[in-house]
Amino acid sequence: MKLGSLKDGTRDGKLLIVSNDLKLCVHKASVAKTLQEALDNWEEVESSLRKIAEDLNRGVLKDSFSFEEKKMHSPLPRAYQWADGSAYLSHMRLVRKARGVDMPEFSNQIPLIYQGGSDSFLAPYENIPLANPEWGLDFEAEICVITDDVPMGVTKEEARKHIKLVMLCNDVSLRMIMKPELERGFGFFQSKPSSAFSPVCVTPDSLGKNWDGGKIHLPLTSYFNGEKVGSPNAGVDFYFDFPTLISHAAKTRPLVAGSIIGSGTVSNENYKEVGSSCLAEIRMIETIEQGAPRTAFMKAGDEIHIEMFDGNNKSVFGAIKQKVAKV
Amino acid sequence: MKLGSLKDGTRDGKLLIVSNDLKLCVHKASVAKTLQEALDNWEEVESSLRKIAEDLNRGVLKDSFSFEEKKMHSPLPRAYQWADGSAYLSHMRLVRKARGVDMPEFSNQIPLIYQGGSDSFLAPYENIPLANPEWGLDFEAEICVITDDVPMGVTKEEARKHIKLVMLCNDVSLRMIMKPELERGFGFFQSKPSSAFSPVCVTPDSLGKNWDGGKIHLPLTSYFNGEKVGSPNAGVDFYFDFPTLISHAAKTRPLVAGSIIGSGTVSNENYKEVGSSCLAEIRMIETIEQGAPRTAFMKAGDEIHIEMFDGNNKSVFGAIKQKVAKV
Repeated sequence: MKLGSLKDGTRDGKLLIVSNDLKLCVHKASVAKTLQEALDNWEEVESSLRKIAEDLNRGVLKDSFSFEEKKMHSPLPRAYQWADGSAYLSHMRLVRKARGVDMPEFSNQIPLIYQGGSDSFLAPYENIPLANPEWGLDFEAEICVITDDVPMGVTKEEARKHIKLVMLCNDVSLRMIMKPELERGFGFFQSKPSSAFSPVCVTPDSLGKNWDGGKIHLPLTSYFNGEKVGSPNAGVDFYFDFPTLISHAAKTRPLVAGSIIGSGTVSNENYKEVGSSCLAEIRMIETIEQGAPRTAFMKAGDEIHIEMFDGNNKSVFGAIKQKVAKV
Repeated sequence: MKLGSLKDGTRDGKLLIVSNDLKLCVHKASVAKTLQEALDNWEEVESSLRKIAEDLNRGVLKDSFSFEEKKMHSPLPRAYQWADGSAYLSHMRLVRKARGVDMPEFSNQIPLIYQGGSDSFLAPYENIPLANPEWGLDFEAEICVITDDVPMGVTKEEARKHIKLVMLCNDVSLRMIMKPELERGFGFFQSKPSSAFSPVCVTPDSLGKNWDGGKIHLPLTSYFNGEKVGSPNAGVDFYFDFPTLISHAAKTRPLVAGSIIGSGTVSNENYKEVGSSCLAEIRMIETIEQGAPRTAFMKAGDEIHIEMFDGNNKSVFGAIKQKVAKV
């Protein structure tokens, strides 16, 4: 099943059930008006939503209409929880090298997660506002899951069943603000402005054999100004899987329904072959190989396009396509 | 005007308009069912809510009923944004000394704010669950404001008018997890479990001369196991006021209606006279004066009571009274 939120002028958008081929969609207010409402009552509404999705995929719903990615908001335009990991260690090594800091202690034993701001996400086709070109704007292509209610102290094994939906993310980052901000010791704040998510999120079962219960085994492709810059496999070198990240995030507190947990920037150890999912990595590789970065951070007019295709070259989540706009 | 959220089994509670003396309250679903709904539509509903509050204070509302603090949830049981500052520098100096780290650069020029988790707050009379006594559980008595929609790049002067409500907070902290977590560079996560807020939040105008547009000039009193341990004035030594904190938080992103901005632990430079608003400070003062801390962190059964009284010794926000419970 695929779900998304149509922009309709409200803060949370209108829940759409979307066909597997991303061609048709339908809204059923009687089941759930918004995705958050559906997640708040997942046990009660899931079977109804699945029945609608089934009918939609069979093409027998009279009130269905054409699905248009560009009209979508992020699946949760605002959320209560956005906890983002950094679970691809090759990414962590490269960006930390760029910042001139060592890998954290126990990096292969304890996951690293930061508390993200979840109140105002960008839509997947929305411009990224940039007030100052010297902030070092970067994209980060990631995988995320959305949970139902997760109790405090959940085990990895139990965490698995709390994963209800999967989606893509552009975790927008301001690299030149990041270094001084992190040095002050309280983590990211100004350096992590509003993120954007894919036009639809999907249930794990809809991913078939590409979902193993903890990670998604497909390449995640990033195009920067139309040129493919990376296509690392999200199921490779993902050191801590989603159940592990959820269990870590819920160690001292519960997570409410609609919590978004991110993988961190997707990155493979063989980045020379598969490329990268952010400019910071590309710049660090250039520095290592050529002595200095050649690729500039994003400036007004630059476009980032993030998308994941299945074995039949079909888009799984729709595209994130964002241009940078000076504000 | 005073507002709160009655526990009613729903995720967001039921919005109550509460009388100034905290004795009566009323629910008006036709105006707004929840506090978040009221904040989402503040411009439209504010005058109706104020009219109801006026009638309630005059004792002419037939459907009003007795207000009971113990039945209240935090004003926003779950929120989209919880950004907590550390704006009392005497607190920052003491807890950093305890962690063995220096003051951050520019601590008197740039505010320090961390991104808090906002998805699952505790009620003001709810037990604080503690799974492991070695985590070093501590309370932190703070002041918070709730904003309406704040645009990105808001100035301090403009930020002032976005402050719609004021309340108290117990920012629960796990001191023994904090040090290793902060050393890993991504800020607080596991060390900041669910916080609790006062039974009511109030509009700035209801504070009269005790509110100067940016801070509240009243002592905030903390009782630990029935003994008063601190009563610092929230308007003294508050190095960055709320408009400054909001402007800092909104530098690279907007903040949505219902965003909670915290002051950090209230602390005065003359802490020897006025006491402290957390155990970490008390322990550090003991260490400085006596060579070692004598006060233990909170354990099962311990109680923290946080309350603010006005010049007539009347409670402004109701009490936060929480016991620690082993889970």
